[in-house]
Amino acid sequence: MQSPATNLTTYFMPKANAFYAQSGGVTPVINASACGVIETAATYKQQINKVFAGRNGIIGALREDLIDTSKESKKAIRGLMTTPAGAFGSCRYKLRNLEENRAEYQRLIDVFKAHNIRYFFYNGGGDSADTCLKVSQLSELLDYPLQAIHIPKTIDNDLAFTDSCPGFGSVAKYIAVSTKEAALDVKSMCETSTKVFILEVMGRHAGWIAGSAGLAADKAGDAPHIILFPEVAFDEARFLAKVKNTVDAQGYCVIVASEGTQTADGRFLSDSGIRDAFGHAQLGGVAPMLAHLIHGHLGYKYHWAVADYLQRAARHIASQTDVTQAYAVGKAAVEMAVAGKNALMPCIVRAKGERYRWTVGEAPLAKVANREKRLPKSFISRDGFGITPTARRYFEPLIRGEAYPHYSRGLPVYTSLKNLSVPRKLSDGFDY
Amino acid sequence: MQSPATNLTTYFMPKANAFYAQSGGVTPVINASACGVIETAATYKQQINKVFAGRNGIIGALREDLIDTSKESKKAIRGLMTTPAGAFGSCRYKLRNLEENRAEYQRLIDVFKAHNIRYFFYNGGGDSADTCLKVSQLSELLDYPLQAIHIPKTIDNDLAFTDSCPGFGSVAKYIAVSTKEAALDVKSMCETSTKVFILEVMGRHAGWIAGSAGLAADKAGDAPHIILFPEVAFDEARFLAKVKNTVDAQGYCVIVASEGTQTADGRFLSDSGIRDAFGHAQLGGVAPMLAHLIHGHLGYKYHWAVADYLQRAARHIASQTDVTQAYAVGKAAVEMAVAGKNALMPCIVRAKGERYRWTVGEAPLAKVANREKRLPKSFISRDGFGITPTARRYFEPLIRGEAYPHYSRGLPVYTSLKNLSVPRKLSDGFDY
Repeated sequence: MQSPATNLTTYFMPKANAFYAQSGGVTPVINASACGVIETAATYKQQINKVFAGRNGIIGALREDLIDTSKESKKAIRGLMTTPAGAFGSCRYKLRNLEENRAEYQRLIDVFKAHNIRYFFYNGGGDSADTCLKVSQLSELLDYPLQAIHIPKTIDNDLAFTDSCPGFGSVAKYIAVSTKEAALDVKSMCETSTKVFILEVMGRHAGWIAGSAGLAADKAGDAPHIILFPEVAFDEARFLAKVKNTVDAQGYCVIVASEGTQTADGRFLSDSGIRDAFGHAQLGGVAPMLAHLIHGHLGYKYHWAVADYLQRAARHIASQTDVTQAYAVGKAAVEMAVAGKNALMPCIVRAKGERYRWTVGEAPLAKVANREKRLPKSFISRDGFGITPTARRYFEPLIRGEAYPHYSRGLPVYTSLKNLSVPRKLSDGFDY
Repeated sequence: MQSPATNLTTYFMPKANAFYAQSGGVTPVINASACGVIETAATYKQQINKVFAGRNGIIGALREDLIDTSKESKKAIRGLMTTPAGAFGSCRYKLRNLEENRAEYQRLIDVFKAHNIRYFFYNGGGDSADTCLKVSQLSELLDYPLQAIHIPKTIDNDLAFTDSCPGFGSVAKYIAVSTKEAALDVKSMCETSTKVFILEVMGRHAGWIAGSAGLAADKAGDAPHIILFPEVAFDEARFLAKVKNTVDAQGYCVIVASEGTQTADGRFLSDSGIRDAFGHAQLGGVAPMLAHLIHGHLGYKYHWAVADYLQRAARHIASQTDVTQAYAVGKAAVEMAVAGKNALMPCIVRAKGERYRWTVGEAPLAKVANREKRLPKSFISRDGFGITPTARRYFEPLIRGEAYPHYSRGLPVYTSLKNLSVPRKLSDGFDY
């Protein structure tokens, strides 16, 4: 039996618009979540009128620069399923504390009011979960009814509460496939050429991506022979000894190094000194640093690669599991909102048992925001250079299935939206 | 009408074995050529007994370390079609001049005699074409009948005489796809984050690979905005001006830089100082160098990637055209050899006309060896930073078609051969 309050909501809440924005670093599948939001919203015609997207993320809301997604064809929206990066633009912009800059939050509410937006869908990582929570709190404070739902997205896989984060599985697949392929290359040449190959991967504070490279190994002795995790302090002597032992035993050595590899005192191995909008150091260059270290001490011929954006844009090798989950959390977010729920994040719940099965659950935003989930100790092998069978069981289902895009003349066909603006209603601008 | 000599060859040449070796840097499709050789040899049972592969290339012949490919299952050999790198091992080892070290060539002939090898298939680039030519000359000098056929392979696409080189099309596809994907990433974030992205690609002395990135652009303004070719002298001021203009106009700038980018005086932008067995400088690090240059002068936030071995091992995104041609030249090599031909290289001949059609032709090795085919001037746009429509017409058919490998549990299934040794017949060893 439904409560009278729920009935009131159902019968008297006027039809409203929804706001959707992409936040932070994009992924190969964040657009699949957008597709899930937009297609699902279209099935709730009684509750949701239009979905407006923020042009370049939350900045679009602050500037009242909204995109009318109803102007896109159904085919174009469906095309988001196979298109990497952020179709509406994303941003690195973190709203400050409510106390510090209430004007920003007030501005969001003003824009939402002006456009009759009552549903707020924010698609991002830990920082945007925090923003989403604050928006929901302010809407309560200001008595402006707003369902604020966070949609998880991060290649870093470091969000609390969810078993995995949409975006991660595809990057993991790219890294595992690339490691397997490059290792075959090195192995076939090592007699007379390169003996050490280093692949630098993303994952600033957590070794999820680095760890996923471990899937490339089928049996003992297979590459990658060394994984460097941010969770394990870099010890130069132990590292060099392991490289030498591996080359002696296998003839070659493949190393996968997280960009966040750090020494015991918490200093990144390589730090360019630049910091991003969130105060995070901009990393890069661990691979050449390690290469020079190895060459200097052991004299081996080396090669190194830095995958950088290639890894997080590689929709051509996306994981089917990941694409499906990205869509599912977008869909679930809309369903939660129209059910009157607030300050939640749909999350992936893994069922117990040998066979991988998952459902979408709900996580309270207060428990998700600003928390980083690091790689569990049980995932890292005793010597600190590899992954355990427990880790393999966790990672493996996340990279399953090939969700290939359509190709034309040798290249993937990626959707390009019209991204037409919603006419402005407010007279004042806003300098973010 | 056949000459009496040819008749003698046909009727009295005893059934013999064939030698096949992979040389130099491997590719995503060199194993498809191996498959073409082995499968085709099996259809000439009257002429060819077994195919012996050199373990780690020509070194395997010098050491009498031969692999008996007849011990592999048909399925394993077929699996070579979808397996990157060198299944028998490759090497960077260039035989010296005949005058300088005749012993090496004599040793090859001794090993071939001992194992009744009368067909010599050498699968490599310009250096190995030269070796192949010398082997054929020595066999004539020593009156040991040997059909020496070179099978073209190089991701650098710099072999003379052939319209394209097996290996190149797949790398071109990987680079074009990756550029397109990374560009979407940068574009969607450039408002508040990275404005400049640099992808460093292979191609030591010729800009074929760098140029193929130009396929990622569908229309004016699309990435890549700047391509740096070895063929165009790097001019810092013009480069920085182009970066600034592009960011001003598009909001972001994607740069694809050949590792061989060099200044007007012929110095590589970045040179680690290490040289390989052929005396070539080991390159790498152009991308970070350019990134620092741009940041220093223009202050833009940047990211950079170095694809390195990932690009030449990426069988997961190989071009169907390339895979088909790699097999075809392996097949043609065997057909030429059993037809009594010598000192030739099967090559790809592009038919005239709008529609892409190709056949396999024959190139005399003397005209192929030690020549590098650079990117034609007509392929480079007037400002030196892009490709022309002529170049697009050349490149586009080479990346067509997706020849996906089979996957299991999220990863490609790549063939691993048994690589069993042929029992040695010579008592003496050989230090190469």
